Amino acid sequence: MQSLSPQARIAMAVICVLALAPAVAGSADDDASAVFGVRLPAGYRDWQLISVAHEAGSLNDIRAILGNDVAVRAFRDGTRPFPDGAIIARLAWQYVPSAENNAVFGQAQSFVAGATTNVQFSVKDSQRYARTGGWGYGQFEDGKPNRSEALLNTCAPCHARAPKADDFVFTRYAR
Amino acid sequence: MQSLSPQARIAMAVICVLALAPAVAGSADDDASAVFGVRLPAGYRDWQLISVAHEAGSLNDIRAILGNDVAVRAFRDGTRPFPDGAIIARLAWQYVPSAENNAVFGQAQSFVAGATTNVQFSVKDSQRYARTGGWGYGQFEDGKPNRSEALLNTCAPCHARAPKADDFVFTRYAR
Repeated sequence: MQSLSPQARIAMAVICVLALAPAVAGSADDDASAVFGVRLPAGYRDWQLISVAHEAGSLNDIRAILGNDVAVRAFRDGTRPFPDGAIIARLAWQYVPSAENNAVFGQAQSFVAGATTNVQFSVKDSQRYARTGGWGYGQFEDGKPNRSEALLNTCAPCHARAPKADDFVFTRYAR
Repeated sequence: MQSLSPQARIAMAVICVLALAPAVAGSADDDASAVFGVRLPAGYRDWQLISVAHEAGSLNDIRAILGNDVAVRAFRDGTRPFPDGAIIARLAWQYVPSAENNAVFGQAQSFVAGATTNVQFSVKDSQRYARTGGWGYGQFEDGKPNRSEALLNTCAPCHARAPKADDFVFTRYAR
């Protein structure tokens, strides 16, 4: 590189930045979830409730969907697409019968949250995630980012099947 | 009353207060839920999440349990009995399949929150509700208090069957 002119060095630097850009926009960071580079948002367990759901089948979880202030405001106001900065958190737990509750009620009717399975996030950033509808996705187990590109690469194609009018979000606000 | 002495009037007033006391301690207030006089807490929909559950059978709802700051802190710290001022909110919605989600997933697996059914509150006040384990109970439909004494009188006997070590609360905090 010693023989390169200052102009050539600048040109080389630009080429290097461009070449590395996908890795930076994605995740080369061990603290971030794969593909989208989403980090665990601080304080997400304190966020407000958007809705709840039960996914049967192989997932067999019960879940709560929480949102940061930007996301919750957009849900309540019906603002679509969601503004940049919106983050939706999906917390999930094993779907387990409550023997204790059922004994009180006198019948098997009560299903509650067991051990946590994982937490997923949808992060709105229309520039950074322009190629996936403006959304980046992350998954965490026990606070640790999931580093599987194969897994994280399933997020966007699935959400792309949610209505565009809903900004590719499955959850509706529960009033 | 014109012929009564001042002393007699005071005595009469005391008698009236005593006679009315159960109604005051309970609910003679159209804005309050029956029996315990619980009013709809302002801003409860913004409270933090304690857990989620599905009650099958005749209820057939999916629910979120939220708490005010006092309640959530006690849940997280394991403080029992709950301090006075703790309020636990149980929001419930019809448990409905999501045709939209199931179409995306390719199988019937997704159950979501439909129309709201009712909202119930457990209010800790060890003095006011000393006779029911320190808890008063309320139920609201569409923001309106349920005025059925028969209904509200079922709350305490059922919660009395929850463990005393849990301060008669069924819900566990979902971590």
